[in-house]
This record gives sequence, structure tokens and C-alpha cells, in this order.
Amino acid sequence: MVSISKKARVMPASPIRKLVPYAEAAKNRGIKVYHLNIGQPDIETPSVALDAIRNINDKVIAYTHSAGIERYRRRLAEYYNGLGIPPIDYEDIIVTTGGSEAILFSFMACLDDGDEVLVPEPFYANYNGIAVEADVNIVTVKSTIENDFALPSFDEMERALTDRTRAILICNPNNPTGYLYDESEIRALGRLALKHNLYLIVDEVYRDFCYDGKSHFSVLNLTDCGDNVIMIDSISKRYSMCGGRVGALVSRNREVIDAVLKFGQARLCAPYVSQIAAEAALDTPKEYFDNVKQEYLTRRNVMLAELGKIEGVRCPVPGGAFYATAELPVDNAERFSQWLLEEFSYEGATVMLAPASGFYATPDCGTKEVRIAYVLNVDDIKAAVKCLAEGIKKYNSR
Amino acid sequence: MVSISKKARVMPASPIRKLVPYAEAAKNRGIKVYHLNIGQPDIETPSVALDAIRNINDKVIAYTHSAGIERYRRRLAEYYNGLGIPPIDYEDIIVTTGGSEAILFSFMACLDDGDEVLVPEPFYANYNGIAVEADVNIVTVKSTIENDFALPSFDEMERALTDRTRAILICNPNNPTGYLYDESEIRALGRLALKHNLYLIVDEVYRDFCYDGKSHFSVLNLTDCGDNVIMIDSISKRYSMCGGRVGALVSRNREVIDAVLKFGQARLCAPYVSQIAAEAALDTPKEYFDNVKQEYLTRRNVMLAELGKIEGVRCPVPGGAFYATAELPVDNAERFSQWLLEEFSYEGATVMLAPASGFYATPDCGTKEVRIAYVLNVDDIKAAVKCLAEGIKKYNSR
Repeated sequence: MVSISKKARVMPASPIRKLVPYAEAAKNRGIKVYHLNIGQPDIETPSVALDAIRNINDKVIAYTHSAGIERYRRRLAEYYNGLGIPPIDYEDIIVTTGGSEAILFSFMACLDDGDEVLVPEPFYANYNGIAVEADVNIVTVKSTIENDFALPSFDEMERALTDRTRAILICNPNNPTGYLYDESEIRALGRLALKHNLYLIVDEVYRDFCYDGKSHFSVLNLTDCGDNVIMIDSISKRYSMCGGRVGALVSRNREVIDAVLKFGQARLCAPYVSQIAAEAALDTPKEYFDNVKQEYLTRRNVMLAELGKIEGVRCPVPGGAFYATAELPVDNAERFSQWLLEEFSYEGATVMLAPASGFYATPDCGTKEVRIAYVLNVDDIKAAVKCLAEGIKKYNSR
Repeated sequence: MVSISKKARVMPASPIRKLVPYAEAAKNRGIKVYHLNIGQPDIETPSVALDAIRNINDKVIAYTHSAGIERYRRRLAEYYNGLGIPPIDYEDIIVTTGGSEAILFSFMACLDDGDEVLVPEPFYANYNGIAVEADVNIVTVKSTIENDFALPSFDEMERALTDRTRAILICNPNNPTGYLYDESEIRALGRLALKHNLYLIVDEVYRDFCYDGKSHFSVLNLTDCGDNVIMIDSISKRYSMCGGRVGALVSRNREVIDAVLKFGQARLCAPYVSQIAAEAALDTPKEYFDNVKQEYLTRRNVMLAELGKIEGVRCPVPGGAFYATAELPVDNAERFSQWLLEEFSYEGATVMLAPASGFYATPDCGTKEVRIAYVLNVDDIKAAVKCLAEGIKKYNSR
């Protein structure tokens, strides 16, 4: 008998998918399910990008360069330069098949088997799977809800380093907490990386979603440790093109770029039509982003206001992205989330949450927390949080 | 100073790209370069697929299921069943981002770090890079030009097995040799796999290109060792959609499929628009394939006839795909290929070949061989082989 690999056995199944069968069963019983569990925005893709797809007039859908279409890379460099960060050359950019591939490539290019990458938890759960694929270990330091999920102190991070630590990885703004790391935190990470010869990998795929007048401070601003810095980007959230599968890895470290290109050659190229759409998306008018940001801001504020009405719920104000991690007044958020789908409904509806324990590496952490993606329209968010409130009441009085 | 990983250092650069700078330089000198070096067909993508792209009318380019769009998987199952192979269920199929990803997933799901995969050489060079990524070792047995690149004997393959061998990988029809493995060879591989508990991974991306009345015998016919069998597929060559980046991994081993799905979840999904195009491509009329096959057959025959006029060239008749591996009467094919680009032209043109040494793992193998991709139209093939003939003459009389 053949058997699967150790890697396949330890590979985590997506934690946000665990509850999917219960949601399906609820729908089959005729119950409406409000999905606060997933980061698939309902925002329309910019029409310039959709038009570019519809106007494809190639006769052959051919391979592109493994580093991405040069014209797209050049325009992407202009886009980064337009953000006011110090100059980025198109040769500092490798176009990847989604941000996920950019993270995988950064791990494979920079870390040896068994090396460690330091990540503040809670963190985006797929980093676990990508680490397994690349044979590297995620070691965590703790961001706490008490501290609004801010970066742990320099000392605390330094204490978590071992002789196998080779990189720090953060997501800014953060998935799952919505925390927006500010300039001083990013600079502190840069000093830590420089002091200990670490790569600093920053996943900036939610860069465009910052609220309350705060602006995003890209890690690419850190020119004093440019060789240490790798920025991960994606069109998925910026242009609501999750299905495009176009991302980018950006670094001023040419040795890293050359290494990543070799990994890129082994998979030939990123999808052609999506790259064309991604290039066209660079012409998205400013109004689109203004509207989208305003929409998310309104949704966030409605969500926070409605959550605020539920006794015992704690939810730090997310400064960016479209997630919040909230603590609920229940014994166990995973059990509660499953119960909501299996045994509860309010006015014919229920709500699906992402239990936050799946975003922690440390056992028994975040057991009362859930990630809430505010990707629904305002009326649905109100109805969903109302369901949640009624659910908590009923669950605790069983 | 940060440094790149061991993996990045041993990761091979694409061997077919080594000569690219010389080709660029030749073009900059005004010389026309006939590209016999790459497998990018000039054949038009079927109009049903291009129309599907142009008719995309989604408002949001969203994630698909990590296993692929269910409707596409169901239609793909019908397509395989239409080939006359024993029933394939849509749940036996994971849609991947190109055939490359399907191979990477099969390695990661089935082999542990340091395990060996047995491959007849010469073989598709990117298998090397994918093996490095998955931390597995490629061990080769030799197909020889003297034997028309047929499968080595059962005994010879058995002798190459070690206690770390976990899989056999072949490409059928073969890249780079064009060799079409017949039913008895595939059945022999199945017996070997069953006897030694090995996975049998067959890359069938050139399935549709078989000539001289021979038909393709898919590894999926081997139901007596269904748990051992993994079939790799892709739309790249079948529909001339290399830039689509849609492939598939097919296996009746549900444990393998479940494992592969977890790797699939870590990268979220294959590109949406490409999957829509791939589904539409299933409606490509039979005439398209008849025409394409006839075109390749004509090109192959012209290439063989023209090569036959050059004294000292040996080229087995390729039974499938659109490659041939030929031995040239030169001291060293890599040196010669570089010379053709650097120092030679005939009537303002030269030819770019892929030195076959890059397709061998064993040092000093195939040093006089080149891979020729007959992806140019008949006139260009004639002109290219004429260049080659003149080049050989001049090179040997220096």
C-alpha cells in the first residue's frame, strides 16, 4: 500500500473551512446564513479591469515571462513610486500567482529547512500551511486583545529569537485583527531585523484599507535595511479580484529576486489574462477607492456600534483591512460558532463566524475570540450582529 | 548580512533560458532567430475559449473553490470518461494552477524529504526545480537515442530502486524526446509500482498529440493499481493556452486527493477566468484537433525530412508531443548552440536550439544532443533546419 507523506499529514486543513459542512446543512434546512467568516469582498471589481478582460484580443493565450509581463512590472513600479516610497525599480518586482505564492517563494528563497519565522499571533492561518510546504517553523509572539493587538515590545520579540530565526513576518494592516502597524512599529521591526540579520517580510495586501485618517507606512520605506526587506502584495483585495491570482514579491535585495525568479521559472508564469487585468486595474480612478473605503468604514462603524450593544463583547477598533477579532461572552467560540449553525436561528437566519483559535499557534489561545469579516452590506451586518446577539443570549441560557 | 537559502542556491535556473541573452544579442545585431528551443505553440487558442474570456460578465472576480469550480470538475470528469478510460468521478480531480503545480502537489503529498522519484532521462528540466522545492531527489534510469528513447527494461528500472524510492514519474508523450509510451510500457510501470508500493505519476499534458495512427494509453486505465496512480494534466498544450495556468491532478486515491486539496487551500484557488476558459474549451470542435494534429504531423515530417539531409544527424521519429531530441555531428551541442547565436548567421538568420544536456541529470550525457520543438510553420522549419545544416558545416570547418 502506498501512503501519503508526513508533510501531507501535518498540513493543516483551512480552519475557516471546518464549519462549512454545518453551514451547508443549515442552508439545506432553509436557514439564511450571514457569512462574517470569509474575506471575499462583495465589492465590484473596477470596470477598467473587467473591460480589459473582455477586450482580450490575442489569438494565443501564451506564457508570459516568469517574472511577469515587463510592461506590467514597469507600471507596478510606477504605482509603488506614486505611493511616495523611495524608488522601486521594475527589476525589484516578481509578479506571482497571488500573494500566497509570494509568501511561499519568500520562505523557500530565504529560509532553510527547520529555520524559524517569527510571527505575532493571531495571524493569517494559511501562513501555517505555507510554512509546512516550505519546511520552516512558525514561532509566535503574542499580540493581545487587551493591548488592541499592537506589536509586542522589542524586548519581547528579541526574547523569542533563537539561532534558527531567519525572518519576521507580519501582515499590515492585519488579517485577522485589522490592526494597522504604524511607522514606529515598522521601524522597530526594521531595527530588529538589521540587528539580528533577519529578513523582514511584510504582507501588505490590505494596504489600501486604512481608516480614521491614518495612512499606511510601507516596509519599503526602510531603505536602511533594504536587503532585509521583502514586501508581499496582491491585487485580490485592492481591486476585489481574489480570483485573478496575481500578486507580487518586491525587494531591493537582488540576490533574493534572482532566487525567487528561479522558483518562478519552475512554474513558468503567472496567469496571462489576470496580469492584463491587473495592469489595467492600475488605472482605477481615485473615486473607486474613496467609495470602497467609505463603504468599509461605514460597515466597520455599524459593526462596532452593533457589537457595542452586546454585553460582554470586546472588540478593539480595527484601523485597517476589513476584519476585526472580537472576544465573545461564551465558554468557547468554536463550540458556539458550530452551535449557531447547528441549533440556532433567529427570524429564519443565523450567522457564520471564524473561530479565532485557528489563527493562533499557541494551544488554548483565543478560545473565546472570533474573526469577523465586515464584507457584507450595512443592512446585512446589522441583521447578522442581531443574530449574534440573540444567539449569545440563547446559548448562555441553555 | 542576510543570505539566501540552500534551496535557492541549488535551485537550477531554467536550462532553456541559459542561451536567451545570446539570442537577444543576435536580434539586436539584426539577425532573425528561429526559435526551435521552446514549447510555446503558435497554434491559435480555440475560439470557444477566447469567446468565454471575452464574455465574462461577473461583477466580482472572486475566489473559486480550492479544488476548482465544481461545474468545471464535473465536465472535466465527463471529458476523461469520453476518452474511454474507466470511470473518473469529479471528486477524483483537483484543478491546479498549471500542470507544474500538479507535479509539485503530487511530490509534496506523496514523498517525504529526501525520498526519491525515479525518472527516465532525458526528462523535462523543470522536474528538477520542482523536486528541489519539494525536497525530493530525482534518480534517473536511461532512455537512449540508440533505442529511440523507449522505456528502459523492467529489470533496469528495478535495479535503480532504493529503500527511499517512493514514486516513478514519466511524461507521455515525452518532453523532450517526443517518445510515445505504449500500453505495454504503461502496464509494465503499473506492475513495477504495485510490486514495490510506488506512486506512478504520469504527466499526460501532450496526450492529444499522437501521430501515425497510434493512440494514447492513459495511466488512468490501470485500475488494478488505482491507488498508486496520479495523472497530471494541463490545458496549456491541448488548447494552446499556456498562459492560462490551469492544470489538473487526477487520482482514484482519495487520501491523495484529500492531501492535495489541503495544499490547494493554502494557495486558495486556481485563476477564475482561466477556469471559465478551460471549461469552455471542452466544447472545442473535433475539427480543431484534427487540424492541429495534421499541422504538427506535417511540421514533424518536414523537420525529419530536412534533418535527414544533414549527414551525421540522428533523430528518432517522435510518436507524439511536438518535440524531438536529435544528435548532431558536433563536438558539443551546448557550445554549438551558443556559437550559432553568437557567431553565425545564414542569409541573415540563425537558429536557437535547446541543448539536451539540460534534460539529463547524469553528467556528460546528451552532450551532442539538442531538443527541437517543431512549433514553427513549415516554411520557417525548413529555413531553420537549413540554417542548422549550414551552421554545422561552418562550425566543423572552423
